[in-house]
Amino acid sequence: MVSRDERFMRLAVNLAKRGAGRVSPNPLVGAVLVKDDRVIGKGYHRAYGLDHAEVEAIRSASEDLKDSTLYVNLEPCDHFGKTPPCTTAILQSGIRRVVVGMEDPNPVVSGRGIKRLRDGGISVDVGVLEGECRRLNEAYIKFVTTRTPFVILKMALTLDGRIADPSGGSRWISSERSRRMVHRLRGRVDAVMVGVGTILRDDPLLTVRLVKGRNPKRIIVDSHLTTPLKARVLSQGDPPWIVTTYKAPLKRVDEMRKAGVEVIFLPYREEGVDIRALIDLLGEREITSLMIEGGARLATSALKEGVVDKILFFYSPRILGGEARPVFHDLGIASLEEAVRVRDMRVRKVGRDLVVEGYLH
Amino acid sequence: MVSRDERFMRLAVNLAKRGAGRVSPNPLVGAVLVKDDRVIGKGYHRAYGLDHAEVEAIRSASEDLKDSTLYVNLEPCDHFGKTPPCTTAILQSGIRRVVVGMEDPNPVVSGRGIKRLRDGGISVDVGVLEGECRRLNEAYIKFVTTRTPFVILKMALTLDGRIADPSGGSRWISSERSRRMVHRLRGRVDAVMVGVGTILRDDPLLTVRLVKGRNPKRIIVDSHLTTPLKARVLSQGDPPWIVTTYKAPLKRVDEMRKAGVEVIFLPYREEGVDIRALIDLLGEREITSLMIEGGARLATSALKEGVVDKILFFYSPRILGGEARPVFHDLGIASLEEAVRVRDMRVRKVGRDLVVEGYLH
Repeated sequence: MVSRDERFMRLAVNLAKRGAGRVSPNPLVGAVLVKDDRVIGKGYHRAYGLDHAEVEAIRSASEDLKDSTLYVNLEPCDHFGKTPPCTTAILQSGIRRVVVGMEDPNPVVSGRGIKRLRDGGISVDVGVLEGECRRLNEAYIKFVTTRTPFVILKMALTLDGRIADPSGGSRWISSERSRRMVHRLRGRVDAVMVGVGTILRDDPLLTVRLVKGRNPKRIIVDSHLTTPLKARVLSQGDPPWIVTTYKAPLKRVDEMRKAGVEVIFLPYREEGVDIRALIDLLGEREITSLMIEGGARLATSALKEGVVDKILFFYSPRILGGEARPVFHDLGIASLEEAVRVRDMRVRKVGRDLVVEGYLH
Repeated sequence: MVSRDERFMRLAVNLAKRGAGRVSPNPLVGAVLVKDDRVIGKGYHRAYGLDHAEVEAIRSASEDLKDSTLYVNLEPCDHFGKTPPCTTAILQSGIRRVVVGMEDPNPVVSGRGIKRLRDGGISVDVGVLEGECRRLNEAYIKFVTTRTPFVILKMALTLDGRIADPSGGSRWISSERSRRMVHRLRGRVDAVMVGVGTILRDDPLLTVRLVKGRNPKRIIVDSHLTTPLKARVLSQGDPPWIVTTYKAPLKRVDEMRKAGVEVIFLPYREEGVDIRALIDLLGEREITSLMIEGGARLATSALKEGVVDKILFFYSPRILGGEARPVFHDLGIASLEEAVRVRDMRVRKVGRDLVVEGYLH
């Protein structure tokens, strides 16, 4: 049975989702004000720099807040950031009880918001729908606790784990509906990343086109800097970042820079860019979430280096056989016991495809 | 909205399922008698040689059948087989209307049962829940129309399409719940089949143990007859059939026959047993349904030869990488357009695994 608290918390979670793609590096937060079992106010964090959800909800209230209950998926902040602390607004409002989905793992909040409210005489319950609240802010949680992005590995493959036919053909391997879902996800992550092989083979734009949404930062991993100057990713949208190594010809570096592209140098390691160093660098640049979109080589090194947090596999209802290109190269796994394990696997049909998601840590 | 006819037909379908594994080569049939919206009788075909569902339902009726309606998932028979024609029993019963899920595709029935009922003054509606009725008897339909078995290809694999680690280890790749489901399926097909590689590597029993059910006929495809005489499949349960070629050493053939095993010779083709000839032979032997349980080599030739009707893939939440053993070898597919396409794909979680099923024709 769904309790009343869970019902209102779900409403807060759903409100929070509306901010997806616009609040980073802040968390997604929704807030609902309830009095005598009626919703009397609601709000969500609409975009980075704008009001927090709690303040929006308080401001929206249709009546006096005395003795009301506030539902919010994340612990209210107690510090001055872009806006004043939410705890102050709550304490001044007349709200009597606050129901919190999860404690804020951010070291600058972490329990202090809850303590402040309790010290101010407000009754606080923590942990309602905590699983959903954590999933909602999985990227934020990873980022504030590690200062590195939450990494999603998205791959489109056949039922037998192939991403291209023997000659490399991979166009239309996913259905229209799957591609639309990928565009939606692009609009919600801070950055997307592909290896240069994907640029050379597919010449993708990596922008959001099939749905409304802002474009993510686009990143190309290209140890030898062989991305063509006429690649579509360079000429359309904001210039991407190209991550390379000392193997890059300096002339090409100059040309890229002249084209407005930011060329980033990182150590060369195991025949490519040092992926862990890259992830650390993205964290420093406040990229809180990253979607790796292939190809097989980049996917393999990301998995091997242990930087992937979540997989998102789009299975096309096709079989290509053992001569076709596999989704992963050698992962250095010698026996079943060493296999990469996927936790909390979920699946659903999207058009004709299957979408499987799961966590690696 | 579900109509009344659909509701009673679903009841008939569910009754029919109870006969699974015991009626072959007959179809699964359930029957429900309804009068004034109340169920007054029901029955199903319990086992080959026993009464048909319609007769069981009529016999079970708790009151006079005058003006009642009979729901049956398959067209009633109009011929003498092991039992007298159902049409006669229906015509004598007082039933006024018969709702039929699907016409019987068996050439000896095919519309004649329906015609006989209509000629006798009974109102007959055909095609209620037809999709479900067809799925229920997919093996029967294939068999009576082609005289070859309905072939299910069951494989257990990782999310990246691997069936064993680089050294061939594949034990426990599926979860307990998946294995239980496989045992249930074994109890419902006429035969299961593996390649000799699977015998050598896993030494499986291929019997039904984790659930109640009768054992299917077990078939080993073994072109060079290298199955060890001490393989468990030979010593436990009814002796299996071993399908081999002229490459088999005659001494070994004698030993196998002495052990009670039936050794069947078929042409040698593309480095193995001629799979199409094998399927035809199984049809002659009234095997209406067959589940191929691996390994990769047999699965590959079955798929390549086009004999597979349905795939059933159990995905374990693991990733093994490109050095691990793939589920299929070369299928001779050069480009995406030639990929094997899977129709009507369905998916569900079984324990921690995903089970994907779909059709190939």
